Amino acid sequence: MENGNVNHHEMDTFSTITIKGTLSLLMQNVDEQNGKRLISLGMGDPTLYSCFHTTRVAGESVVEALQSEKFNGYSPTVGLPQTRRAIAEYLSRDLPYKLSADDVFITSGCTQAIDVALAMLGKPGANILLPRPGFPIYELCATFRRLQVRYFDLLPEKGWEVDLDAVEALADQNTVGLVVINPGNPCGNVYSYQHLQKIAETAEKLKIPVIADEVYGHLAFGDNPFIPMGVFGSIVPVLTLGSLSKRWIVPGWRLGWFVTTDPNNMYKNPKTIERMKKYFDILGGPATFVQAAVPRIIEKTDEVFFRKTINTLKQTADICWDMVNEIPCISCPQKPQGSMAAMMKVNISDLDDISDDIDFCFRLAKEESVIILPGTAVGLKNWIRITFAADPPSLIEALGRLKSFCERHTKILQTY
Amino acid sequence: MENGNVNHHEMDTFSTITIKGTLSLLMQNVDEQNGKRLISLGMGDPTLYSCFHTTRVAGESVVEALQSEKFNGYSPTVGLPQTRRAIAEYLSRDLPYKLSADDVFITSGCTQAIDVALAMLGKPGANILLPRPGFPIYELCATFRRLQVRYFDLLPEKGWEVDLDAVEALADQNTVGLVVINPGNPCGNVYSYQHLQKIAETAEKLKIPVIADEVYGHLAFGDNPFIPMGVFGSIVPVLTLGSLSKRWIVPGWRLGWFVTTDPNNMYKNPKTIERMKKYFDILGGPATFVQAAVPRIIEKTDEVFFRKTINTLKQTADICWDMVNEIPCISCPQKPQGSMAAMMKVNISDLDDISDDIDFCFRLAKEESVIILPGTAVGLKNWIRITFAADPPSLIEALGRLKSFCERHTKILQTY
Repeated sequence: MENGNVNHHEMDTFSTITIKGTLSLLMQNVDEQNGKRLISLGMGDPTLYSCFHTTRVAGESVVEALQSEKFNGYSPTVGLPQTRRAIAEYLSRDLPYKLSADDVFITSGCTQAIDVALAMLGKPGANILLPRPGFPIYELCATFRRLQVRYFDLLPEKGWEVDLDAVEALADQNTVGLVVINPGNPCGNVYSYQHLQKIAETAEKLKIPVIADEVYGHLAFGDNPFIPMGVFGSIVPVLTLGSLSKRWIVPGWRLGWFVTTDPNNMYKNPKTIERMKKYFDILGGPATFVQAAVPRIIEKTDEVFFRKTINTLKQTADICWDMVNEIPCISCPQKPQGSMAAMMKVNISDLDDISDDIDFCFRLAKEESVIILPGTAVGLKNWIRITFAADPPSLIEALGRLKSFCERHTKILQTY
Repeated sequence: MENGNVNHHEMDTFSTITIKGTLSLLMQNVDEQNGKRLISLGMGDPTLYSCFHTTRVAGESVVEALQSEKFNGYSPTVGLPQTRRAIAEYLSRDLPYKLSADDVFITSGCTQAIDVALAMLGKPGANILLPRPGFPIYELCATFRRLQVRYFDLLPEKGWEVDLDAVEALADQNTVGLVVINPGNPCGNVYSYQHLQKIAETAEKLKIPVIADEVYGHLAFGDNPFIPMGVFGSIVPVLTLGSLSKRWIVPGWRLGWFVTTDPNNMYKNPKTIERMKKYFDILGGPATFVQAAVPRIIEKTDEVFFRKTINTLKQTADICWDMVNEIPCISCPQKPQGSMAAMMKVNISDLDDISDDIDFCFRLAKEESVIILPGTAVGLKNWIRITFAADPPSLIEALGRLKSFCERHTKILQTY
């Protein structure tokens, strides 16, 4: 029977391995005999560390919605009206215009919002422009939705800004969108107002919408404040993706959004909206009672909670920056300014028995029980991604072991 | 700017309107001036009626998982291991072999399980065999996943059994699967062991897997007990779709499963499983804390709760059958035996000013404030689908109004 063999036409194009897949392989390489406690700086899941936990009102709001027994039934597939309205108001706080509830579509986390964006833009022969380094789910999703991917570089020497010349060179009449992740994962950068405006102007020139992945929205602690791409929605249609996951530290609640930040209705014609609504009819969507809790969560969350998270991230980003700068074979182009991770360059030629970033991370896992993501997993060979959303003692311990590891493997200078 | 015009190549093929879409149009037709309370027998969402509510232990288990603060983070995209194991054990109770946790993939409701099945089977040129009447999400999902659909009839005079001759006639070398919904939505039938075996043998002959939609699993209250299609998994690979939604009366919790009930590993080769896991990486999936509650929900739910639901459904199915049989222009081919809805034939020629089932349902909504789904929405013109999962007083009131409506519109016999 050949049923098992159906449908591998996409398989060979899956060159990407997801971050979770890579981390799970690294975990298998940890040597439990070495007596060292496993520390992971691999995943963007801050709930693994006790210094990152959600605000009490968030949990209480969900329990209240559940116990009311009013939200055990189906919600509209695009989301509960009150949830859409609450997200519209929340996002409108930082925009020069007001979003309506109809602009907001509730998704099962930002992951599903990515799928909605790519599935809606996909058509035969189409291509999408993705940042490198980036987030591998985009390429994986594009493959399933039959979109060709084209990579433009983020420029480390320019604070990981988008190489806009490369964007213009890559785009053609089949290009359907440009993905911008800000605050940046995996680079830890936060774009300036001016750079975001230039991105919008470039996209407008190319007549393509911007897919603005703002899953790390508001998690900025450097010089640049977080500016939502939707601020430039009157220049070019912006499809904004976000979720409660990172700012409220509840990635497992699966509450995200896909938002048309498009005040001139350039993207939103009736047929597009009709097709989008039908797409939501085939998606599972998040739990109704979690959706029902959103208005209260947004209303009742204290600024103190947000400030505490920002302060903790700033502290851990500083620790990361300071300690990595003590390691000669690793260099970080700029101090992390946002999100929960940063990219560091490994000077492989300084090391005497390590062939590349993958080898580096596998050896580190084995010898030091420290998990760090090889840059190859996010598109940048011989770099590594360090997630600094960890409690300070674990972070210090892990970076100390990273330093020992590097010292142990650094070539001894032959002096004559 | 043409961005809004991208991607309507599928649009024109969307002949289907979803059940929710149809019901929402009907709702708009209700005349609020007629003084009658709106009663909907349109949706398969029993939570709208107070006689259907979930068992206390289910809500408590979710609250406990949430309040533990151990499940705010990401789960593996295929589901928490303990949740996969619990579902495997739950389903294995009714199978002649044991499923493993690896056979189970946790989805955001049965809707997402449908998408997984169709996306995994889809390939250029492929077609899938769907029942008529059926569940419109299949056709909608097939359109997005670029699968051609071919309909076989369910035979009302044979207890809505599958027309297996039609299945054989429709299948060709591009056919990738056969969908069976049992207990039946929208027909309210429950297939016998013998008929399910014949379906499995036909699928085996055609070398296609069976997609067994068992979202109404165990909701059987007639002569035939519920037999899962997976019982015949050694004849043909079965992809079983299910959820907590109906049996536990929590459709809004979005906890479903896609299960390979395939003891001979005919479907499950390593590449298929690898591709499936990657597909789950782009899905949002259900909340981690809801997943975490599943083992306790399954373990602690009392048989008394299940029996109470079955007894209530049997009672409301009986009311529906008895009252509809009093209406001359409506006929029901058999007493409902399972699920929450049944199909009834409207003898349009007996009515003097109603053109078809759609006209019938819109007029009924306007004149009687009763919502019933036109059969056209599920593929059967001049039939209607009545959901009997309603509290008995509402059901009796609504069917009484249906009777008045029919009497008022019945042709007066001209006698010469």
